[in-house]
Amino acid sequence: MFKNEITRLLSIENPIIQAPMAGGITTSTLVAAVSNNGALGMIGAGYMSSIQLQKQIREVKELTSNNFGVNLFVPGKFMHLENEVEIANSLLKRYREELNIQEDDFTLPNMENAFLSYMQQVQVVIEEKVPICSFTFGVPTADVMGKFKQHNITTIGTATTVTEAISIEQLGMDAVVVQGSEAGGHRGNFISSHEESLIGLMSLIPQVADAIKIPVIAAGGIMDGRGLMAALCLGAKAVQMGTAFLTCEESGAHSLHKEAIIHAKDEDTTLTRTFSGKWARGIKNNFIIEMEEYENVIPSFPIQNALSQSIRKASAIQNNKEYMSLWSGQSATLAKNGTVEELVQRVMGEARKVREV
Amino acid sequence: MFKNEITRLLSIENPIIQAPMAGGITTSTLVAAVSNNGALGMIGAGYMSSIQLQKQIREVKELTSNNFGVNLFVPGKFMHLENEVEIANSLLKRYREELNIQEDDFTLPNMENAFLSYMQQVQVVIEEKVPICSFTFGVPTADVMGKFKQHNITTIGTATTVTEAISIEQLGMDAVVVQGSEAGGHRGNFISSHEESLIGLMSLIPQVADAIKIPVIAAGGIMDGRGLMAALCLGAKAVQMGTAFLTCEESGAHSLHKEAIIHAKDEDTTLTRTFSGKWARGIKNNFIIEMEEYENVIPSFPIQNALSQSIRKASAIQNNKEYMSLWSGQSATLAKNGTVEELVQRVMGEARKVREV
Repeated sequence: MFKNEITRLLSIENPIIQAPMAGGITTSTLVAAVSNNGALGMIGAGYMSSIQLQKQIREVKELTSNNFGVNLFVPGKFMHLENEVEIANSLLKRYREELNIQEDDFTLPNMENAFLSYMQQVQVVIEEKVPICSFTFGVPTADVMGKFKQHNITTIGTATTVTEAISIEQLGMDAVVVQGSEAGGHRGNFISSHEESLIGLMSLIPQVADAIKIPVIAAGGIMDGRGLMAALCLGAKAVQMGTAFLTCEESGAHSLHKEAIIHAKDEDTTLTRTFSGKWARGIKNNFIIEMEEYENVIPSFPIQNALSQSIRKASAIQNNKEYMSLWSGQSATLAKNGTVEELVQRVMGEARKVREV
Repeated sequence: MFKNEITRLLSIENPIIQAPMAGGITTSTLVAAVSNNGALGMIGAGYMSSIQLQKQIREVKELTSNNFGVNLFVPGKFMHLENEVEIANSLLKRYREELNIQEDDFTLPNMENAFLSYMQQVQVVIEEKVPICSFTFGVPTADVMGKFKQHNITTIGTATTVTEAISIEQLGMDAVVVQGSEAGGHRGNFISSHEESLIGLMSLIPQVADAIKIPVIAAGGIMDGRGLMAALCLGAKAVQMGTAFLTCEESGAHSLHKEAIIHAKDEDTTLTRTFSGKWARGIKNNFIIEMEEYENVIPSFPIQNALSQSIRKASAIQNNKEYMSLWSGQSATLAKNGTVEELVQRVMGEARKVREV
């Protein structure tokens, strides 16, 4: 049960993938520790320049000889109305003042630059011969897929519904991560609407498994051996865990972020688009609560993300968790401190025990 | 794994409970067939008078000598503003016209009557010596709990969060149904808010199992042996299945309702409070889509439920599925036609196979 087409495809010992959390969480130490412990470490390259990505890939290679992967955000079309940015800035003004942000040097994201940056990331992944590449927020073009195939890079898509999973299979990808409504961080829906995409793993895994032939990786709220076994029973071949790795010692998440998860209750997370303009699940704090009523007037991703960046940064530097994005899945009470080695060993040990019952 | 404290507590062969779906779905034939097949049949008494309930209990007793149960809606406080009912009626006018509803003879629910009716139901359950009674939308008072204990009736609460599960345990109930966000029909939250209550089973089951000592029954999106095994791996001792039993031949659901589920996709359900004033999951139809923008001005349960009753009824009689409440969980594509016997046999057979892998 623990050795299957996914562990063979990815050349890993255990059917566990560390979720590619963007924004400094997936340090080289974390990624390498995961791969060195028989699971798959993933670099969350979403917000990186191609130069930063190349640097981290080379760092990870120094730290592990096992397989690891990179995750890319597939840029979508976006635009903003002048008015929208002004309104958002006026809403954010009080936070900039409270956090003493002198001048906000944001540059509004530009669509051409976003596509260019993504294509440069693709190039780096290929040049550096990274064995595995996964995608979020969309799928690569047939052209880009061709390049990956040509270089024998294993590709993994991210789906939130059966419709999205089928489209990923049809594109020729090797596997699909199904993201349940339990998942922390950004929602990965790219065909289905936000509302349609909120399907719990108990429903999502078996329906996707029945609809496609490529292997399914389950993501969302999985924190221990019980979750791993449940996902495998439902038809997944591996799990992708984010929150569980986020609180590990090796993760680059802010200590307040780790603490917030460790102390959160099951009902403390919420879906919000106030931070980035894209729906994401995190622990409720003042920013989310206060901005909630303006959720519909906020510019879309990545505009709002750029506008709120200085606030999130200053909040982190000033050790104020109220204006940071505290992404977390719905299983926060199952989070533990400890090392990656302890986590992987514990999950596999628990799974074996559950199996024996 | 399939024989545990729940199967002993309920005296059932298989760890499967048929969800007590109210509104005519849980016919005596359905309830008895479930109990006769080694699972637990449940009468959804929510909208019944005590006389109707007594009649059905006696019918079921004629059809099975095995254990079965009754589910009661625990009435909460409710009120309406005159204005609110007028607005709702003006919104519903077009449907009454379209369906040729001549005169709408609804009587607005009265809180004292609702409590009286509930207490009469409690009395019938006790007098008829029904062995198992479960509760939704709240918990009985200590006084009512005392009566059940005195008569050795097994009590089961319904929770959507750890907080609610703990309160059910503290009240002295024997078991708790945890309702995941995947579940069809009405949300059972009674302490936590609607938003807080939307937790997927992958997160909800293990967190509740860690927090309480009484056995956990998992409900939401479970349709087959994969779901049963997954729920057991996560820490549940049994599953409660609604949608899966709804499409069985023995169920009293309207044929259009059964067909809508059989043909639905994973992303076709939505949460709505347009039908009853209480959030519930069902398959999108014209009523839900058209009324969505008024969701916040609709009176709360059970007022809106009374106001929309003639529309739902006429729609069903006229074989028009657009104005019926087509409750369904998120796993609609896994629904099958067939008998209760086939369903129970299939689920248990699949679960045994999954276990062997």
